[in-house]
Amino acid sequence: MAGDGEEVRNKQVLARDYIDGNPKETDMYFNTSSISLKVPEGTKEVLVKNLYLSCDPYMRGIKPKIPDRLFYSFAPHSPIVGYGKGDFVWGVTKWEEYSLITMTESLFKIQHTDVPLPYYTGLLDMPGMTAYAGFYELCSPKKGEYVFVSPAFGAVGQLVGKLAKLMGCYVVGSAGSKEKVDILKSKFGFDDAFNYKEEHDLDVALKRCFPEGIDIYFDNVGGKMLDAVLLNMRFHGRIAVAGMISQYNLDQPEGIRNLLSLVYKRIRIEGFTVYDCYHLFPNFLDLVLPYIWEGKIVYVEDIAEGVENGPAALVRIFSGHRLTMSESK
Amino acid sequence: MAGDGEEVRNKQVLARDYIDGNPKETDMYFNTSSISLKVPEGTKEVLVKNLYLSCDPYMRGIKPKIPDRLFYSFAPHSPIVGYGKGDFVWGVTKWEEYSLITMTESLFKIQHTDVPLPYYTGLLDMPGMTAYAGFYELCSPKKGEYVFVSPAFGAVGQLVGKLAKLMGCYVVGSAGSKEKVDILKSKFGFDDAFNYKEEHDLDVALKRCFPEGIDIYFDNVGGKMLDAVLLNMRFHGRIAVAGMISQYNLDQPEGIRNLLSLVYKRIRIEGFTVYDCYHLFPNFLDLVLPYIWEGKIVYVEDIAEGVENGPAALVRIFSGHRLTMSESK
Repeated sequence: MAGDGEEVRNKQVLARDYIDGNPKETDMYFNTSSISLKVPEGTKEVLVKNLYLSCDPYMRGIKPKIPDRLFYSFAPHSPIVGYGKGDFVWGVTKWEEYSLITMTESLFKIQHTDVPLPYYTGLLDMPGMTAYAGFYELCSPKKGEYVFVSPAFGAVGQLVGKLAKLMGCYVVGSAGSKEKVDILKSKFGFDDAFNYKEEHDLDVALKRCFPEGIDIYFDNVGGKMLDAVLLNMRFHGRIAVAGMISQYNLDQPEGIRNLLSLVYKRIRIEGFTVYDCYHLFPNFLDLVLPYIWEGKIVYVEDIAEGVENGPAALVRIFSGHRLTMSESK
Repeated sequence: MAGDGEEVRNKQVLARDYIDGNPKETDMYFNTSSISLKVPEGTKEVLVKNLYLSCDPYMRGIKPKIPDRLFYSFAPHSPIVGYGKGDFVWGVTKWEEYSLITMTESLFKIQHTDVPLPYYTGLLDMPGMTAYAGFYELCSPKKGEYVFVSPAFGAVGQLVGKLAKLMGCYVVGSAGSKEKVDILKSKFGFDDAFNYKEEHDLDVALKRCFPEGIDIYFDNVGGKMLDAVLLNMRFHGRIAVAGMISQYNLDQPEGIRNLLSLVYKRIRIEGFTVYDCYHLFPNFLDLVLPYIWEGKIVYVEDIAEGVENGPAALVRIFSGHRLTMSESK
């Protein structure tokens, strides 16, 4: 272990600029600097060594809407190691080997080291908390309710499906290939699934999968899918909007025409981000840790070694490759 | 008082058919039948004599979306007199002199007869409960928050504005004429108001009235106004949708393009109708009765005499005439 105050190498991944569309490896570059293994005197900063860094679609960032944030600032969300005292922590960091954390309120001490540490970059971090907060806290699911998830194959969607099944709900997912649809049904425990790219009419697809209508929609896609879902919601339905990935690359967002359903069906739509929900983290652990211990939730991760492989891994996500997935038992 | 079992005249107003656009007097016709002043044996029905009948915009109904309801069925919402025992009741009835009520769960005994009885067709009935449920229960207003109401001049909008001021909020309304805008500001206590028909760009108008953004939007109009409001909401803003009157007469609803704000700003939109909220009636009375007794809420009503004058009164509403209005003190 390096001594206090020693200078060590710190490889970093930086973004060149805002990006349009899907990220390319050339949108990022490496920088190797050095960092002193000492927290600046008189500050309350924390120095962490990054053991695992997450790699998620949201890292691309959204160019026109949040102009004060660079792509780079979206990258970090990771499990990290508290240096010095030897605590394991997780929270918001950067794609680099060591990070000096100023916003220490976004660091969380890892209490349960009896689950694999990488889980804290996925199942027990952003994707897991997003699934939990949106589905469980915002939508208050009840046993027997009809749940739709889109997209369902991503890290968040899979976990929503898993939580829905564990709650006793009927859950259907949408994905972008036959292979993914098959895996949703055969491995991830979805009651049904469809390939939205092969559906001529999303309204018809939803009516086929939900003849009784939809109680809860976990939306990460927006656009035409949201519009079709609005036609199929049941009375007092709830829609949690975690994102609208179908809209980010459009110059002008698509128009949603079926909002009248909000009144007719007394529907609630609520947007949220996981950053507002970390106060719910203890509740989340109470729900999900027993499932992990009992083997009811297993999280399979694809780990790229070294920050220098981060850009390629991020690009692969946008070409349809998933780095993380949970499998049903 | 007529004796038990006696047959009496019962004038009724009926709708000819579904209607397109605004109602005309010729869309309605009269029928004079007779009714026995006796509740059919073996039923739990209640016979009421209608003292006051309400006259509201929603009565027009909405043709294509609720095909199983005739216009006629939208008409009734009224204060009514319980026959026999002499109780005063209010609830859902029909435009006729006497009504035999089957759905007695929609009848409410009037406990407070120290407020004018016609208040139970307006301030203390649908418009008042709509304003209360949407603004107070769904949006959880806090002192100092920025509130927008559109349309503001109707019976519901005025009451939302009044409740917002009594809560210590800053409230701005939109209306369709200079005269209405002036009255909103000079008589109804709105902090600001604008004529949406004279605004070239609703986004600009809202930014002028709300440089800090909007916390709560009470929406009864939908369409372009909702789209512009979405651009001006503050973080964790709340939108209660009571209706979308700009959309009912369109063959295809307008597309709403700014729903991405839901995620960026963590906004909640919730549709509701007053029919789901009558369990909150005691809470509503607890809030509003003291204001009435203290003279902080005064409700001025325009009363047409006799059911035969109902159709003309309903038509007048859609030509911009208001039958009911509340004035500030």
